[in-house]
Amino acid sequence: MEPATAVDEPHDVRMRGFARRTTVAAAWEWIDGHARRIESERIPLERAGGRVLATDVTSSVDVPGFDRSMMDGYALLADQTQGASHYNRMELQIVGESLPGRPFGGTVGRGQSVRIMTGAPVPAGADAVLPAERVDASGSLLCVLDEVPRGKNIGLRGEDIVAGTRVLAAGRVLRPQDLGVLASIGTVNVEVSRQPRVRIVITGNELLPAGSAPQPSKIIDANGPMLAALVARDGGVAINPGIVPDEPAAILAAMREDADIVLVSGGSSVGQEDYAPSLLAKHGELAIHGVAMRPSSPAGMGRLGDKLVFLLPGNPVSCLCAYDFFAGRALRLLGGRKKAWPYPVRQISLSRKLVSTVGRLDYARVKIVEGRVEPISISGASILSSTTRADGFVIVPADSEGYPEGTMVDVFLYDS
Amino acid sequence: MEPATAVDEPHDVRMRGFARRTTVAAAWEWIDGHARRIESERIPLERAGGRVLATDVTSSVDVPGFDRSMMDGYALLADQTQGASHYNRMELQIVGESLPGRPFGGTVGRGQSVRIMTGAPVPAGADAVLPAERVDASGSLLCVLDEVPRGKNIGLRGEDIVAGTRVLAAGRVLRPQDLGVLASIGTVNVEVSRQPRVRIVITGNELLPAGSAPQPSKIIDANGPMLAALVARDGGVAINPGIVPDEPAAILAAMREDADIVLVSGGSSVGQEDYAPSLLAKHGELAIHGVAMRPSSPAGMGRLGDKLVFLLPGNPVSCLCAYDFFAGRALRLLGGRKKAWPYPVRQISLSRKLVSTVGRLDYARVKIVEGRVEPISISGASILSSTTRADGFVIVPADSEGYPEGTMVDVFLYDS
Repeated sequence: MEPATAVDEPHDVRMRGFARRTTVAAAWEWIDGHARRIESERIPLERAGGRVLATDVTSSVDVPGFDRSMMDGYALLADQTQGASHYNRMELQIVGESLPGRPFGGTVGRGQSVRIMTGAPVPAGADAVLPAERVDASGSLLCVLDEVPRGKNIGLRGEDIVAGTRVLAAGRVLRPQDLGVLASIGTVNVEVSRQPRVRIVITGNELLPAGSAPQPSKIIDANGPMLAALVARDGGVAINPGIVPDEPAAILAAMREDADIVLVSGGSSVGQEDYAPSLLAKHGELAIHGVAMRPSSPAGMGRLGDKLVFLLPGNPVSCLCAYDFFAGRALRLLGGRKKAWPYPVRQISLSRKLVSTVGRLDYARVKIVEGRVEPISISGASILSSTTRADGFVIVPADSEGYPEGTMVDVFLYDS
Repeated sequence: MEPATAVDEPHDVRMRGFARRTTVAAAWEWIDGHARRIESERIPLERAGGRVLATDVTSSVDVPGFDRSMMDGYALLADQTQGASHYNRMELQIVGESLPGRPFGGTVGRGQSVRIMTGAPVPAGADAVLPAERVDASGSLLCVLDEVPRGKNIGLRGEDIVAGTRVLAAGRVLRPQDLGVLASIGTVNVEVSRQPRVRIVITGNELLPAGSAPQPSKIIDANGPMLAALVARDGGVAINPGIVPDEPAAILAAMREDADIVLVSGGSSVGQEDYAPSLLAKHGELAIHGVAMRPSSPAGMGRLGDKLVFLLPGNPVSCLCAYDFFAGRALRLLGGRKKAWPYPVRQISLSRKLVSTVGRLDYARVKIVEGRVEPISISGASILSSTTRADGFVIVPADSEGYPEGTMVDVFLYDS
C-alpha cells in the first residue's frame, strides 16, 4: 500500500523505506535516454490531423500545376494593349473561353484573346489577363479600354509550391493547413509516428471500477478514466481493461500484456503489499524507485521486455502528478512529440507565500484569483478535487524553500 | 468565381461588387447573436474528455465514503497511547484486521486495536492510526511505543468531496482529472453539449478531390481536409462528402443537407458564377456579404432554415482565415465553448515594419526568427504554404496602417 499522507508530513517517516530518493532531473534523464521514438505507419491523409509526421515531405509537383487567371477577364498578349484607353480603343478577336477545369485548347495569337475566368488555365500564347471591367465585349469582338502589363493577373505555375521543395519536415505535428498543403501536392497517405499503446493497470482491492455506484468501504477508481484521458491528450492509445486484483501473479500478467508503455496505478511504494516494484525488479529492471518530490514520491519506473513501465501512486493527485512528470513525457517522446508539458505557462505574482521543503520538488496546485496566484490550501495527495478547483500548478524546485508573496511565478495552466 | 488577387491589390477593384463591406466587429456581433448553444446529450464518462459539461454536477455522496487509514499500522483509541514510549510500552490486544475493501466488522474497544492497512476503513470505535513503525507486534499482542494524537493518520469521510457539493460547473471543458472526480462520485453518464455537425460543401469545377493524383489544369482540393481538421479542433463533427459541381441546384441541395453549420468553400464572391450568396439570399438569409479584411474579404454568412451558413472564399488562405474569424467562432459557441481563438498568444517585437491599409483588418502570417516576429513576404490568398511556413499570425486592425519595426505585437501561434 502506498504511504498516502507520508508525502504530506513534515517528517516523512514512510520514506525511510526508500534507500534514496532520485531527483526529478535524474528521472527525466533516464526517461530521455530510454524513451525511443517508435516506428511509423501510413495512414490516410484525412485522419492525419494532429499526428506527427515521420518523414520529410517533398513535393514532386508544382502547385498550381499551370498558370491560372486570378481575375475574370480576357487572356491576351500584353503588348497588344499598349496605349489602349477609353479614347483609344483597341480591337481583338475573342477566339474561345477558358473555364476552371475546362481550359482553352488552342494558342492565343496576335489580334486574339480568350475569355477567361478566375482559376482557369491561361492559354498558351497569352501573357496577361485584362479584367472584364476594362473592356467592352460584344459577340466575338473585344474592345480593349486599358493597358495591362505583362504577367498581370496571372498566378504562375508553382507560385505556391515548386516541385522539389520540402513542404513539411519530419516531426511536424500536422496542422489543419498542413493537411491542405499535403492534399494539394497529391498526397493520399501520410507516414506518421504510430500512436504508442499505453496499458493502464489499476490495482487496489478497495476499488470499484469507474462507472460503479458508490458502495460502503469501497472507493470508485478515479485513476483509470483520468489516465486514459491524459494518454489521449499526449497522442497515445489507452488500453484500460479495468481493475486488476492486488496479487503478484495478476499484476505481473497485466504488466506483460501487449503495450509500448505500462502504467501501474497503486501499490507503487515500499509496503508489504506494494507488489509492482519488486515484480519489476525481478522480471525486468526497476531503474528508479522513489523520487524527491511531493506528491508522487513513491513513483517508480523501469523496463519490462521492450516496454517502459511507470509505477504511479494510487492516490489520485500523486497519480496525476507522476503521470505528468514522468509517464506523459515518455509517451510524448515515443510518439515523436515535444517532451515539454502541454500546459500553457503564464507568469503571475503570488497573492500569498508558497512554502516548500528543501530537498524535494513541490507540485503546488493554485487558483488565479483577481489576477494573482493563490496556492490551494487543502492539497493532500488524495484530494483529487484540489486539481479540479485549481486553475493550474506551480513547481517549487527541490533547492527552494518556497516563494514570498508577490513573487512572479510560472503557472502551468490545466486548460489551454 | 472569387476575386482571388483582388484582396491583395492596393486598389481593390473587384470589391466594387460589394455594396458595402461589413467590419469584422459587426460580423462577430451577428455571430454572437445567432450562434445559440445547441442541446445536450448523455455520453459514457470514458468518452467525455474534452467535451463541454452541459449542467452543473453536484455530488450526492461523500468521497471517500468512509474514514480510512492513511498509513499501514494499528487503529486504536488515541487516549490509550498517552505517555507511551520505548521506555513506557503500553499493551493492547490485536482483535482483527482491516484491509482495503475488506473492513473489520466489529468495534474497537478499550484495550484493543486492529491491524490496518493504507486505504482500509477505520473500524468503529477507533479514532487514530498508530504507524507500524511505532509498535512491536507479536501474535495478538501489540506493544505501543509512541503516542498518537486523536484523528492522526485518518483520512476523513468526505475529505475530498462532501455530499451536496457542486464539483463541476456547466460549461466546463472536461479535463482528465475531472473525469476522475466524476468517476469517484459514481458518475456513469455525463450530460455534455452535443458536438455540432458541420457540413463542408466544396465547390469548384477546377477541383479534384483530396487524395487524387495531380492532373494538368486541375487543382487538388486543399480546403476539404483543412476544414475537416479545423472543425475537429473546435469540437465539431465534420461531414465532408466531396466536391459539389458548380451548379446552383447542386450547391443548394448540398447546403440543405442535415447539419448545424454549413461551410461553403468557393464561389462566395460577386462574380457571375458565385452562386452561393444569391442562393442563400433567395432561400434563406444572407446577413453579411463582404468583410473589410484581407484576405477573406469575399466571405459571407447567413442562415438557411435552422442552419448557420458560412461562405468561405475558395482561395485556401482566405478559406482558413474566414473559417478562423467567423465559422470557428460560431462552431465553438454552438458547442458551448469559449468564442476566443484556440491559438496561444505571445507578445513579441517586430523585426521589420508590418504595413497594412487603413479601412480593412489584416491577417498577416509571420515567422518567429531569433525571438523576433518577421512578416512573411509571399502572402497571397492562394499561397497556402505561407501558412505552413508561418509560426502564426498577427492581426492589424482596420484603423491601423501597420506597425513600425520593434513594436510589440500579439502573435497568435498556430501550434499550441
